Amino acid sequence: MTERKLLEKITAWTGAPGEGIVRGIGDDCAVFRPRAGEDLVFTTDFLIEDVHFRRETHKAADVGYKALVRGLSDIAAMGAEPRFCLLSLALPEWADNRWTEGFYKGLLGLAAAHGTTLAGGDLARAEKLVCDIVVCGSVVRNKALRRDGAKPGDALFVSGLLGGSALGLSTGKGKAWKKHLHPEPRLALGRAVRDWGATACMDLSDGLSLDLHRLCVASNVSASLDGELPLFPGATPEQGIHGGEDYELLFTVRDEAKVPEDFDALPLTRIGTILEGNAGRIRIGGEFELLPMGYDHFSRS
Amino acid sequence: MTERKLLEKITAWTGAPGEGIVRGIGDDCAVFRPRAGEDLVFTTDFLIEDVHFRRETHKAADVGYKALVRGLSDIAAMGAEPRFCLLSLALPEWADNRWTEGFYKGLLGLAAAHGTTLAGGDLARAEKLVCDIVVCGSVVRNKALRRDGAKPGDALFVSGLLGGSALGLSTGKGKAWKKHLHPEPRLALGRAVRDWGATACMDLSDGLSLDLHRLCVASNVSASLDGELPLFPGATPEQGIHGGEDYELLFTVRDEAKVPEDFDALPLTRIGTILEGNAGRIRIGGEFELLPMGYDHFSRS
Repeated sequence: MTERKLLEKITAWTGAPGEGIVRGIGDDCAVFRPRAGEDLVFTTDFLIEDVHFRRETHKAADVGYKALVRGLSDIAAMGAEPRFCLLSLALPEWADNRWTEGFYKGLLGLAAAHGTTLAGGDLARAEKLVCDIVVCGSVVRNKALRRDGAKPGDALFVSGLLGGSALGLSTGKGKAWKKHLHPEPRLALGRAVRDWGATACMDLSDGLSLDLHRLCVASNVSASLDGELPLFPGATPEQGIHGGEDYELLFTVRDEAKVPEDFDALPLTRIGTILEGNAGRIRIGGEFELLPMGYDHFSRS
Repeated sequence: MTERKLLEKITAWTGAPGEGIVRGIGDDCAVFRPRAGEDLVFTTDFLIEDVHFRRETHKAADVGYKALVRGLSDIAAMGAEPRFCLLSLALPEWADNRWTEGFYKGLLGLAAAHGTTLAGGDLARAEKLVCDIVVCGSVVRNKALRRDGAKPGDALFVSGLLGGSALGLSTGKGKAWKKHLHPEPRLALGRAVRDWGATACMDLSDGLSLDLHRLCVASNVSASLDGELPLFPGATPEQGIHGGEDYELLFTVRDEAKVPEDFDALPLTRIGTILEGNAGRIRIGGEFELLPMGYDHFSRS
């Protein structure tokens, strides 16, 4: 299949462009018209064969889903609404037409469910499969949720149950494996968290211990984990604290803010409190220090 | 070096955020505030080791320059002004701290020369170096130059001299090699072409024969190459017609439009005319048909 034929197929699978897309796939650039009074948020996320997935365990549609859900989760963490995405895809020899179609079906199904048009990208050949997804979201001006606004005394919350993805990765079966393969981007929750006046928010991609450490460093505060962690059934406390790819939201609100116990049947749990000083340090159970042991591509290599 | 240390270094090399960047490197997303009355244009471009460059022949700064210039050239082809970029970078073991710094210096030097802030991206490890650059540009609403507007009777122009990059790639020396390593993005020319009322425009990345074919297919027209091609000194006609990576602009204007002979000492040459029907077909010298033989990642694999 030539690049032109593949582009024609991708254009057909993609369907009609969404709101704001003046020019989609097929030109030097995609053209997008922003709405008045909004800021735009942008995230890029790699998905690389044998780094982020293995083709022995992930079907084509699972890889396409995972490529996009990582970006959508970042959009959720900003309290924004996804608008469009761009996909750079380098295909190896083993990815035949059927695999490629399955990949796009997985990606475009998730995109359609969240009103996110595929507006462009790049294609290349490589020895291992590489995708890089860009997602653009929009949010009312000055209302994007950042990770640097947590203040001493703020309450620390997490959505959902932790450790499911790590458990699924270790067992390769059951509901935990499904959670690993098909996490839900918490888009509606992100916008609700923004409306509750959250002071900081981020998504849990590399594990609570590392991601909370990052939030605290950005906000120049420390934290105490003094609540019970909401664990995924069967997950160990270690999987809940250090396991990556849960794609739940971690957020802080003023102590007096009213956060419901759940959001659309998703539990919201107060797990700790933001403290002054010692930027990035995390206490657990009142006395022990929690070391950030989540996933770091570079320190593990 | 941990991911966090590398991020701190990148943030320091990047410097102050440019106009419109509300939040740069360091959050789940970059936050950008569009100006009123403008459309935004987006391009993504891979640069992959042993596909788009070889580390034996390209220094770190050359790779960084090339990663960005491909995107800036797409922005030029739309008649837009670059605003910010996002970089996804997967580093192999061989890329040590010194190489990585050189890469960012090459990329950020070019970015600074064209007012393009690095606003975010992603980092990962991989066996071979992969970068994917996203460039966002802005342009007055409805004024972006597309490739689908060429009309029968339009004059076809090209900027600069063709075949230099292909010649440089084959000899590895002299001015042609410099043209291959450090092409200039034709940003000011792109905006001028827009002001001259161009009907279509694109950049020459995969060779005149293939790129003109693409412009003609998009515009549903054919073309006749009846002017003399402006060849780079020493380049063969084949290198001028089929050679890739010249990053010059190919554009069409109404026959009566006034296009100067040069733009800031860069020659502008009328090389042909747009004709009716036979979408994508290109005649050369009045009778022979030119086959699109430029670079296609997929048909060559």
